[in-house]
Amino acid sequence: MASSQDVDMRPEVHVLRLSHRAVRDKRVTTHLGLVARAFGARRLVVTGTKDEHLVNSIQRVVASWGGPFDIAFISGWMKLIRDYKSRGFRVVHLTMYGLPVQDYMSEIRKSDKILVVLGGEKVPPEAYQLADYNISITSQPHSEISALAVFLDRLFEGRELKKKFENARQVIIPQARSKYVLKK
Amino acid sequence: MASSQDVDMRPEVHVLRLSHRAVRDKRVTTHLGLVARAFGARRLVVTGTKDEHLVNSIQRVVASWGGPFDIAFISGWMKLIRDYKSRGFRVVHLTMYGLPVQDYMSEIRKSDKILVVLGGEKVPPEAYQLADYNISITSQPHSEISALAVFLDRLFEGRELKKKFENARQVIIPQARSKYVLKK
Repeated sequence: MASSQDVDMRPEVHVLRLSHRAVRDKRVTTHLGLVARAFGARRLVVTGTKDEHLVNSIQRVVASWGGPFDIAFISGWMKLIRDYKSRGFRVVHLTMYGLPVQDYMSEIRKSDKILVVLGGEKVPPEAYQLADYNISITSQPHSEISALAVFLDRLFEGRELKKKFENARQVIIPQARSKYVLKK
Repeated sequence: MASSQDVDMRPEVHVLRLSHRAVRDKRVTTHLGLVARAFGARRLVVTGTKDEHLVNSIQRVVASWGGPFDIAFISGWMKLIRDYKSRGFRVVHLTMYGLPVQDYMSEIRKSDKILVVLGGEKVPPEAYQLADYNISITSQPHSEISALAVFLDRLFEGRELKKKFENARQVIIPQARSKYVLKK
Protein backbone atom coordinates (compact mmCIF):
# COMPACT_ATOMS: atom_id res chain seq x y z
CA MET A 1 0.00 0.00 0.00
CA ALA A 2 1.35 3.44 -0.90
CA SER A 3 2.35 5.66 2.01
CA SER A 4 0.95 9.17 2.26
CA GLN A 5 4.12 10.61 0.71
CA ASP A 6 3.59 8.60 -2.44
CA VAL A 7 0.31 10.23 -3.49
CA ASP A 8 1.10 11.97 -6.76
CA MET A 9 -1.06 15.08 -7.00
CA ARG A 10 0.09 16.17 -10.45
CA PRO A 11 -1.09 17.94 -12.54
CA GLU A 12 -1.13 21.23 -10.61
CA VAL A 13 -4.69 22.59 -10.69
CA HIS A 14 -5.97 26.11 -10.09
CA VAL A 15 -9.67 27.02 -10.26
CA LEU A 16 -11.13 30.28 -11.59
CA ARG A 17 -14.67 31.17 -10.51
CA LEU A 18 -16.23 33.87 -12.70
CA SER A 19 -18.68 36.48 -11.47
CA HIS A 20 -19.12 35.74 -7.78
CA ARG A 21 -22.00 37.73 -6.26
CA ALA A 22 -21.42 38.22 -2.52
CA VAL A 23 -24.97 37.68 -1.28
CA ARG A 24 -26.54 35.25 -3.71
CA ASP A 25 -23.46 33.09 -4.30
CA LYS A 26 -22.02 33.04 -0.80
CA ARG A 27 -22.62 29.40 -0.01
CA VAL A 28 -22.13 28.11 -3.55
CA THR A 29 -18.71 29.75 -3.92
CA THR A 30 -17.71 28.63 -0.41
CA HIS A 31 -18.61 25.07 -1.36
CA LEU A 32 -16.59 25.49 -4.58
CA GLY A 33 -13.55 26.53 -2.55
CA LEU A 34 -13.96 23.56 -0.22
CA VAL A 35 -14.29 21.18 -3.16
CA ALA A 36 -11.26 22.67 -4.91
CA ARG A 37 -9.15 22.12 -1.77
CA ALA A 38 -10.55 18.70 -0.81
CA PHE A 39 -10.17 17.29 -4.33
CA GLY A 40 -6.57 18.39 -4.81
CA ALA A 41 -6.51 21.86 -6.41
CA ARG A 42 -4.04 24.41 -5.03
CA ARG A 43 -5.82 27.72 -5.48
CA LEU A 44 -9.23 29.31 -6.04
CA VAL A 45 -9.25 32.61 -7.94
CA VAL A 46 -12.54 34.53 -7.85
CA THR A 47 -13.74 37.45 -9.99
CA GLY A 48 -16.64 39.67 -9.01
CA THR A 49 -17.55 41.34 -5.72
CA LYS A 50 -14.68 41.06 -3.23
CA ASP A 51 -16.03 39.04 -0.34
CA GLU A 52 -14.03 39.03 2.92
CA HIS A 53 -16.45 36.59 4.48
CA LEU A 54 -15.68 34.02 1.78
CA VAL A 55 -11.93 34.56 2.11
CA ASN A 56 -12.16 34.13 5.89
CA SER A 57 -14.23 30.93 5.68
CA ILE A 58 -11.77 29.30 3.31
CA GLN A 59 -8.74 30.43 5.32
CA ARG A 60 -10.28 29.07 8.51
CA VAL A 61 -10.76 25.67 6.85
CA VAL A 62 -7.13 25.66 5.65
CA ALA A 63 -5.87 26.65 9.13
CA SER A 64 -7.86 23.86 10.68
CA TRP A 65 -7.74 21.01 8.14
CA GLY A 66 -4.47 21.81 6.35
CA GLY A 67 -3.19 22.92 2.98
CA PRO A 68 -1.53 24.14 0.89
CA PHE A 69 -4.53 25.99 -0.56
CA ASP A 70 -5.23 29.66 -1.07
CA ILE A 71 -7.90 31.99 -2.37
CA ALA A 72 -7.54 35.31 -4.23
CA PHE A 73 -9.88 37.89 -5.73
CA ILE A 74 -8.98 39.53 -9.03
CA SER A 75 -10.47 41.75 -11.69
CA GLY A 76 -9.76 41.30 -15.40
CA TRP A 77 -10.42 37.62 -15.88
CA MET A 78 -9.56 37.58 -19.59
CA LYS A 79 -6.09 38.89 -18.85
CA LEU A 80 -5.79 36.35 -16.05
CA ILE A 81 -6.65 33.45 -18.37
CA ARG A 82 -4.12 34.72 -20.94
CA ASP A 83 -1.46 35.00 -18.20
CA TYR A 84 -2.17 31.43 -17.10
CA LYS A 85 -1.88 30.22 -20.69
CA SER A 86 1.46 32.00 -21.14
CA ARG A 87 2.70 30.17 -18.01
CA GLY A 88 1.88 26.81 -19.61
CA PHE A 89 -1.51 26.11 -18.04
CA ARG A 90 -4.14 24.30 -20.11
CA VAL A 91 -7.52 26.01 -19.66
CA VAL A 92 -10.54 23.74 -19.14
CA HIS A 93 -13.90 25.52 -19.00
CA LEU A 94 -16.60 23.34 -17.45
CA THR A 95 -19.96 23.98 -19.09
CA MET A 96 -23.05 21.88 -19.75
CA TYR A 97 -22.73 22.83 -23.44
CA GLY A 98 -19.21 21.43 -23.90
CA LEU A 99 -17.72 18.16 -25.10
CA PRO A 100 -18.15 14.99 -22.99
CA VAL A 101 -15.56 14.67 -20.20
CA GLN A 102 -15.22 10.92 -20.77
CA ASP A 103 -13.98 11.49 -24.35
CA TYR A 104 -11.31 14.09 -23.50
CA MET A 105 -10.00 13.27 -20.03
CA SER A 106 -7.08 11.11 -21.13
CA GLU A 107 -5.88 13.96 -23.36
CA ILE A 108 -6.44 16.63 -20.69
CA ARG A 109 -4.62 14.53 -18.12
CA LYS A 110 -1.37 14.88 -20.07
CA SER A 111 -1.09 18.54 -19.07
CA ASP A 112 1.31 19.51 -16.26
CA LYS A 113 -0.79 22.48 -15.17
CA ILE A 114 -4.52 23.04 -15.53
CA LEU A 115 -6.73 26.05 -14.93
CA VAL A 116 -10.35 24.99 -14.44
CA VAL A 117 -12.82 27.79 -15.27
CA LEU A 118 -16.32 27.79 -13.76
CA GLY A 119 -18.97 30.28 -14.79
CA GLY A 120 -21.66 32.06 -12.84
CA GLU A 121 -25.16 32.72 -14.17
CA LYS A 122 -24.15 34.15 -17.55
CA VAL A 123 -20.83 33.10 -19.03
CA PRO A 124 -19.40 35.59 -21.56
CA PRO A 125 -18.71 34.09 -25.04
CA GLU A 126 -15.02 34.96 -24.61
CA ALA A 127 -14.71 32.22 -21.97
CA TYR A 128 -15.61 29.61 -24.60
CA GLN A 129 -13.06 31.10 -27.00
CA LEU A 130 -10.17 31.48 -24.54
CA ALA A 131 -10.54 27.94 -23.16
CA ASP A 132 -8.44 25.13 -24.61
CA TYR A 133 -11.32 22.78 -23.82
CA ASN A 134 -15.01 23.36 -23.14
CA ILE A 135 -16.02 20.25 -21.25
CA SER A 136 -19.38 19.00 -20.00
CA ILE A 137 -20.15 16.49 -17.30
CA THR A 138 -23.49 14.89 -18.33
CA SER A 139 -24.83 17.61 -20.76
CA GLN A 140 -27.55 18.18 -18.14
CA PRO A 141 -28.11 21.09 -15.76
CA HIS A 142 -26.66 20.48 -12.28
CA SER A 143 -24.10 22.50 -10.33
CA GLU A 144 -20.64 24.05 -10.61
CA ILE A 145 -19.85 22.27 -7.35
CA SER A 146 -20.62 18.78 -8.66
CA ALA A 147 -18.98 19.51 -12.02
CA LEU A 148 -15.72 20.51 -10.32
CA ALA A 149 -15.72 17.53 -7.95
CA VAL A 150 -16.37 14.91 -10.64
CA PHE A 151 -13.83 16.55 -12.97
CA LEU A 152 -11.09 16.47 -10.30
CA ASP A 153 -11.96 12.94 -9.14
CA ARG A 154 -11.60 11.74 -12.73
CA LEU A 155 -8.50 13.86 -13.42
CA PHE A 156 -6.64 12.48 -10.39
CA GLU A 157 -8.22 9.01 -10.83
CA GLY A 158 -9.13 8.85 -7.14
CA ARG A 159 -5.62 9.64 -5.82
CA GLU A 160 -7.05 12.80 -4.21
CA LEU A 161 -9.12 10.59 -1.89
CA LYS A 162 -5.87 9.66 -0.13
CA LYS A 163 -4.24 13.09 -0.17
CA LYS A 164 -2.61 14.12 3.11
CA PHE A 165 -2.80 17.81 3.95
CA GLU A 166 0.07 19.76 5.49
CA ASN A 167 -0.12 21.48 8.86
CA ALA A 168 -3.59 20.20 9.69
CA ARG A 169 -4.68 20.87 13.27
CA GLN A 170 -7.28 18.14 13.03
CA VAL A 171 -7.68 14.94 11.04
CA ILE A 172 -10.67 12.60 10.71
CA ILE A 173 -10.09 8.95 11.52
CA PRO A 174 -12.76 7.14 9.47
CA GLN A 175 -15.34 5.22 11.52
CA ALA A 176 -18.18 2.82 10.71
CA ARG A 177 -20.84 4.48 12.93
CA SER A 178 -19.43 7.45 14.79
CA LYS A 179 -17.26 10.55 14.56
CA TYR A 180 -13.59 10.59 15.50
CA VAL A 181 -11.55 13.73 14.98
CA LEU A 182 -7.90 13.61 16.03
CA LYS A 183 -6.75 17.02 17.33
CA LYS A 184 -3.06 17.74 16.98
CA MET B 1 -20.74 1.71 -29.30
CA ALA B 2 -23.77 1.18 -27.07
CA SER B 3 -27.00 2.83 -28.17
CA SER B 4 -28.90 5.04 -25.76
CA GLN B 5 -31.25 2.18 -24.87
CA ASP B 6 -28.36 0.06 -23.62
CA VAL B 7 -27.35 2.29 -20.69
CA ASP B 8 -27.96 0.22 -17.58
CA MET B 9 -28.92 2.57 -14.76
CA ARG B 10 -29.20 -0.05 -12.02
CA PRO B 11 -29.13 0.05 -9.04
CA GLU B 12 -32.22 2.18 -8.44
CA VAL B 13 -31.19 5.18 -6.31
CA HIS B 14 -33.30 7.50 -4.18
CA VAL B 15 -31.81 10.40 -2.20
CA LEU B 16 -32.93 11.61 1.23
CA ARG B 17 -31.97 15.15 2.23
CA LEU B 18 -32.33 15.75 5.99
CA SER B 19 -33.31 19.08 7.54
CA HIS B 20 -33.80 21.40 4.60
CA ARG B 21 -34.18 25.03 5.72
CA ALA B 22 -36.18 26.98 3.12
CA VAL B 23 -34.19 30.23 3.17
CA ARG B 24 -30.64 29.24 4.00
CA ASP B 25 -30.57 25.98 2.04
CA LYS B 26 -32.59 27.01 -0.99
CA ARG B 27 -29.80 26.89 -3.55
CA VAL B 28 -27.89 24.02 -1.97
CA THR B 29 -30.94 21.72 -1.92
CA THR B 30 -31.89 22.78 -5.46
CA HIS B 31 -28.39 21.87 -6.61
CA LEU B 32 -28.72 18.53 -4.77
CA GLY B 33 -31.94 17.79 -6.66
CA LEU B 34 -30.32 18.67 -9.98
CA VAL B 35 -27.32 16.47 -9.20
CA ALA B 36 -29.53 13.58 -8.11
CA ARG B 37 -31.42 13.75 -11.41
CA ALA B 38 -28.42 14.39 -13.69
CA PHE B 39 -26.37 11.58 -12.15
CA GLY B 40 -29.05 8.92 -12.41
CA ALA B 41 -31.10 8.91 -9.18
CA ARG B 42 -34.91 8.62 -9.50
CA ARG B 43 -36.19 10.63 -6.54
CA LEU B 44 -35.25 13.27 -3.98
CA VAL B 45 -37.03 13.09 -0.63
CA VAL B 46 -36.62 16.12 1.61
CA THR B 47 -37.36 16.57 5.32
CA GLY B 48 -37.72 19.93 6.99
CA THR B 49 -39.58 23.07 5.97
CA LYS B 50 -41.88 22.35 3.01
CA ASP B 51 -40.63 24.52 0.17
CA GLU B 52 -42.90 24.99 -2.84
CA HIS B 53 -40.27 27.06 -4.59
CA LEU B 54 -37.83 24.13 -4.48
CA VAL B 55 -40.48 21.68 -5.71
CA ASN B 56 -41.35 24.01 -8.59
CA SER B 57 -37.71 24.51 -9.66
CA ILE B 58 -37.06 20.80 -9.81
CA GLN B 59 -40.33 20.07 -11.62
CA ARG B 60 -39.56 22.78 -14.18
CA VAL B 61 -36.19 21.15 -14.90
CA VAL B 62 -37.81 17.72 -15.31
CA ALA B 63 -40.49 19.16 -17.64
CA SER B 64 -37.82 20.80 -19.74
CA TRP B 65 -34.87 18.38 -19.69
CA GLY B 66 -36.71 15.09 -19.05
CA GLY B 67 -37.07 12.40 -16.43
CA PRO B 68 -38.19 10.27 -14.77
CA PHE B 69 -37.38 12.14 -11.56
CA ASP B 70 -39.53 13.40 -8.75
CA ILE B 71 -39.28 15.26 -5.46
CA ALA B 72 -41.30 14.80 -2.27
CA PHE B 73 -41.38 16.38 1.20
CA ILE B 74 -41.95 14.18 4.22
CA SER B 75 -41.83 14.32 8.00
CA GLY B 76 -40.62 11.44 10.14
CA TRP B 77 -37.32 10.58 8.48
CA MET B 78 -36.47 7.69 10.83
CA LYS B 79 -39.68 5.91 9.87
CA LEU B 80 -38.94 6.67 6.22
CA ILE B 81 -35.49 5.08 6.43
CA ARG B 82 -36.96 2.00 8.15
CA ASP B 83 -39.64 1.75 5.43
CA TYR B 84 -36.98 1.93 2.72
CA LYS B 85 -34.98 -0.81 4.46
CA SER B 86 -38.04 -3.05 4.68
CA ARG B 87 -38.47 -2.59 0.90
CA GLY B 88 -34.95 -3.90 0.31
CA PHE B 89 -33.03 -0.62 -0.05
CA ARG B 90 -29.47 -0.43 1.28
CA VAL B 91 -28.98 2.85 3.16
CA VAL B 92 -25.76 4.76 2.48
CA HIS B 93 -25.23 7.86 4.64
CA LEU B 94 -22.62 10.18 3.16
CA THR B 95 -20.61 11.85 5.92
CA MET B 96 -17.06 13.15 6.18
CA TYR B 97 -16.65 10.97 9.29
CA GLY B 98 -17.45 7.67 7.54
CA LEU B 99 -15.43 4.90 5.90
CA PRO B 100 -13.58 5.60 2.62
CA VAL B 101 -15.78 5.27 -0.47
CA GLN B 102 -12.99 3.59 -2.45
CA ASP B 103 -12.86 0.67 0.04
CA TYR B 104 -16.62 -0.06 0.06
CA MET B 105 -17.96 0.82 -3.39
CA SER B 106 -17.62 -2.63 -4.92
CA GLU B 107 -19.65 -4.05 -2.01
CA ILE B 108 -22.26 -1.27 -2.13
CA ARG B 109 -22.63 -1.68 -5.88
CA LYS B 110 -24.04 -5.19 -5.40
CA SER B 111 -27.29 -3.72 -4.00
CA ASP B 112 -30.35 -3.53 -6.28
CA LYS B 113 -31.75 -0.47 -4.55
CA ILE B 114 -29.93 2.26 -2.63
CA LEU B 115 -31.12 5.13 -0.46
CA VAL B 116 -28.43 7.81 -0.18
CA VAL B 117 -28.83 9.95 2.96
CA LEU B 118 -27.37 13.46 3.11
CA GLY B 119 -27.36 15.52 6.28
CA GLY B 120 -27.85 19.21 6.89
CA GLU B 121 -25.88 21.20 9.47
CA LYS B 122 -26.34 18.82 12.39
CA VAL B 123 -26.91 15.15 11.67
CA PRO B 124 -28.70 13.26 14.48
CA PRO B 125 -26.75 10.23 15.82
CA GLU B 126 -29.67 7.98 14.74
CA ALA B 127 -28.72 8.56 11.10
CA TYR B 128 -25.33 6.90 11.71
CA GLN B 129 -27.06 3.97 13.42
CA LEU B 130 -29.84 3.42 10.89
CA ALA B 131 -27.48 3.52 7.89
CA ASP B 132 -26.08 0.28 6.50
CA TYR B 133 -22.97 2.23 5.51
CA ASN B 134 -21.53 5.56 6.69
CA ILE B 135 -19.30 6.56 3.80
CA SER B 136 -16.89 9.46 3.33
CA ILE B 137 -15.53 10.95 0.16
CA THR B 138 -12.08 12.36 1.10
CA SER B 139 -12.50 12.67 4.93
CA GLN B 140 -12.30 16.43 4.36
CA PRO B 141 -14.98 19.12 4.62
CA HIS B 142 -16.56 19.95 1.26
CA SER B 143 -20.22 19.82 0.18
CA GLU B 144 -23.24 17.51 0.10
CA ILE B 145 -23.51 18.39 -3.59
CA SER B 146 -20.01 17.17 -4.47
CA ALA B 147 -20.31 14.12 -2.20
CA LEU B 148 -23.50 13.01 -3.96
CA ALA B 149 -22.11 13.59 -7.47
CA VAL B 150 -18.85 11.70 -6.89
CA PHE B 151 -20.70 8.88 -5.12
CA LEU B 152 -23.14 8.43 -8.04
CA ASP B 153 -20.42 8.77 -10.70
CA ARG B 154 -18.47 5.99 -8.96
CA LEU B 155 -21.57 3.87 -8.29
CA PHE B 156 -22.66 3.93 -11.94
CA GLU B 157 -19.04 3.84 -13.19
CA GLY B 158 -19.68 6.69 -15.60
CA ARG B 159 -22.72 5.11 -17.28
CA GLU B 160 -24.82 8.04 -16.03
CA LEU B 161 -22.82 10.36 -18.31
CA LYS B 162 -24.59 8.74 -21.26
CA LYS B 163 -28.05 8.48 -19.74
CA LYS B 164 -30.89 9.55 -22.03
CA PHE B 165 -33.84 11.25 -20.34
CA GLU B 166 -37.45 10.61 -21.30
CA ASN B 167 -39.83 13.27 -22.60
CA ALA B 168 -37.19 15.98 -22.75
CA ARG B 169 -38.31 19.15 -24.51
CA GLN B 170 -34.70 20.16 -25.08
CA VAL B 171 -31.39 18.34 -25.44
CA ILE B 172 -27.85 19.71 -25.57
CA ILE B 173 -25.74 18.73 -28.56
CA PRO B 174 -22.16 18.96 -27.25
CA GLN B 175 -19.99 21.57 -28.96
CA ALA B 176 -16.30 22.51 -28.85
CA ARG B 177 -16.78 26.29 -28.50
CA SER B 178 -20.45 27.22 -28.54
CA LYS B 179 -23.91 26.36 -27.26
CA TYR B 180 -26.34 24.21 -29.19
CA VAL B 181 -29.68 23.26 -27.64
CA LEU B 182 -32.03 21.17 -29.73
CA LYS B 183 -35.69 22.05 -29.02
CA LYS B 184 -38.21 19.30 -29.62
